[in-house]
Amino acid sequence: MHTTVGIVGGGPAGLLLSRMLHRAGVDCVVLESRDRAYVEQRQRAGLLEQSTVDALREAGAAARLDAEGLVHDGVELRWDGRGHRIDFPALTGGRKVWVYAQTEVVKDLVALQLADGAALYFEARVRAVEGADTGRPVIHYTHDGQDKTLTCDYVVGCDGFHGVVRAAVPEGVQRTFERVYPYSWLGIMADVPPSCEELVYAHSPRGFALYSMRSPEVSRLYLQVPNGTDPADWPDERIWDELDARSGLPGGKLERGRITSKSVLPMRSSVTEPMRYGRVFLAGDAAHIVPPTGAKGLNLAVADVVVLGRALIQWRRTGSKEQLDAYSDTCLRRVWRAEHFSYFMTTTLHTDPEQSGFETRLQISQLDRIAESKHAAAELAMNYAGLPLP
Amino acid sequence: MHTTVGIVGGGPAGLLLSRMLHRAGVDCVVLESRDRAYVEQRQRAGLLEQSTVDALREAGAAARLDAEGLVHDGVELRWDGRGHRIDFPALTGGRKVWVYAQTEVVKDLVALQLADGAALYFEARVRAVEGADTGRPVIHYTHDGQDKTLTCDYVVGCDGFHGVVRAAVPEGVQRTFERVYPYSWLGIMADVPPSCEELVYAHSPRGFALYSMRSPEVSRLYLQVPNGTDPADWPDERIWDELDARSGLPGGKLERGRITSKSVLPMRSSVTEPMRYGRVFLAGDAAHIVPPTGAKGLNLAVADVVVLGRALIQWRRTGSKEQLDAYSDTCLRRVWRAEHFSYFMTTTLHTDPEQSGFETRLQISQLDRIAESKHAAAELAMNYAGLPLP
Repeated sequence: MHTTVGIVGGGPAGLLLSRMLHRAGVDCVVLESRDRAYVEQRQRAGLLEQSTVDALREAGAAARLDAEGLVHDGVELRWDGRGHRIDFPALTGGRKVWVYAQTEVVKDLVALQLADGAALYFEARVRAVEGADTGRPVIHYTHDGQDKTLTCDYVVGCDGFHGVVRAAVPEGVQRTFERVYPYSWLGIMADVPPSCEELVYAHSPRGFALYSMRSPEVSRLYLQVPNGTDPADWPDERIWDELDARSGLPGGKLERGRITSKSVLPMRSSVTEPMRYGRVFLAGDAAHIVPPTGAKGLNLAVADVVVLGRALIQWRRTGSKEQLDAYSDTCLRRVWRAEHFSYFMTTTLHTDPEQSGFETRLQISQLDRIAESKHAAAELAMNYAGLPLP
Repeated sequence: MHTTVGIVGGGPAGLLLSRMLHRAGVDCVVLESRDRAYVEQRQRAGLLEQSTVDALREAGAAARLDAEGLVHDGVELRWDGRGHRIDFPALTGGRKVWVYAQTEVVKDLVALQLADGAALYFEARVRAVEGADTGRPVIHYTHDGQDKTLTCDYVVGCDGFHGVVRAAVPEGVQRTFERVYPYSWLGIMADVPPSCEELVYAHSPRGFALYSMRSPEVSRLYLQVPNGTDPADWPDERIWDELDARSGLPGGKLERGRITSKSVLPMRSSVTEPMRYGRVFLAGDAAHIVPPTGAKGLNLAVADVVVLGRALIQWRRTGSKEQLDAYSDTCLRRVWRAEHFSYFMTTTLHTDPEQSGFETRLQISQLDRIAESKHAAAELAMNYAGLPLP
């Protein structure tokens, strides 16, 4: 079998790319190793920046997002007994963010692609990608118990950091930049209406806490915990007590409810350069990881495939490889901006177990400055609500 | 002997405070351990921010500064083969900086104080400060070979980080926050007109370099070097070659000239809280140290004594201790802002010998952002040109 663009990975990046190409008449196939139910259930990010929403709208995939997504005009920072709201539209010239779970984006895109008859295969396990440096790369995969081969003009790896495509690039061709943080997040989902209308990012000597939501009925809450934490060490009562203790405002008490999931998320930064090898492109987590504090992971992945989708469509229509050749550089500028912002948010708000009193005072001074300087607040707002796509 | 305010240290902070008090009719004495020639020659900072110039003007001590100081409307940043100018007046609503050496400020203040008959004693070595927690602190010092005693209403330590006053505060009363950096500066003075009109801050994989000047005839140049560097390992030719190599722009060559001094400056951050103990106040380096990258040390010292001078004059005129009691908190807000900014400038522009490729990429992304975002540039400009005095 042959296709123009072979897409490995049926998460939001692979699905959106497939949707863009399909609508433009560019032949493509999506191979996803998991089954549909799994893909539609896995809990990941939940915050879409302005340009992500714009991209989903442009792809005709925002009907339910526009109906059910929660539009947020700001977030609140809390530290040292104080709180300060960041007003996104006022500071960015109208940009906003949407609370709408990644898993819902995936459901919407899967439904649309299947309805349109796009080639989207679940439980299609890619075994190898070969020939990236030839004119005709090949994807070897197993589906329905059979070993199959898909030849492509281009292969796109949207299959994450531990994916097959990333691993198929020979050693020495790319360089990876990394940082691991000395803390993780304990994330919980709870069947209780959120106690705050907007996200709250709380700096506390006890460690960072994030108060968030998935819907008007479901709270999504995070606590900084040591690396290697076992969620079993955090009974429900301890979680709620600790969330209250870190809220940063006297008397701040959360509404409690049934906790439906607990998981520990490690924090890592990683960038692989370039994001292309021959006829293989990497997009999203396959090329870069951010710690979740800046809510940039999903949004970066969407930005990658918007740039790549446009470039593939341009090439298909005109034969010009100009945008394809610029893909890696174009994306990496945005990626490094997001890496820097995510690092900034992470290191400003978390308490490193080894940090000195000097470093804590610098964090407080930085947060104080955001509260008193319109320029400092605007930098945060513009990076958080998301820079315009290139 | 008794005086209202005993000032230990005849550097710019002690001298300016003395000038403010003397002009307001508040009795004070300055005790400086070195001789006049030494004080008027030691090379220190050379950049005055807007509010420092305003304070010197208000104290009637800016005649020569206004005649001979070099007004600078900006600085240039260089990194990754690029350069970007920060336009201070445009980004701050008119604020500027002045190149005018600290040693010249000292000469001007010494001359004024002696002409006015203010009590300013050189070679007056303070041996001890006692009774900070009583109503009448005492300074024991030696002058003209005789041991003397000065009782005061208040004592002000403007005698630096290794000064006697700071050491006189009992242990456990204050808390000190510190950070030492893994690099130093090799500073040189050269008899050659500066090759650039404004200061240039250069990020380079070879290490940071700063291109500065003291006058239209004298260049002041700095190179990041390892801690423990012996200036003897840096012959003149090596210094000029290295400055050229770090200039960051292809073909950038400095005019070379006779190097008249070489010295190594360690880089440290330190803050002592509170800046007061009983009837003893600490000001300038006696209370806080910044690495020199943000040019904040002298300017912070001036801000301290402006706040303290006003407070002492208010107390003397009205009996109210309100401003005196607020002194430490008022100053520490500005101090921590400057500490944060100095840390930011230092860590953004220097290459830590142990830094990872990830951290280098973050530095580049930060510098790129300053070049592309008016808000990021304005934050740098406002902090560099100096926030208004409280």
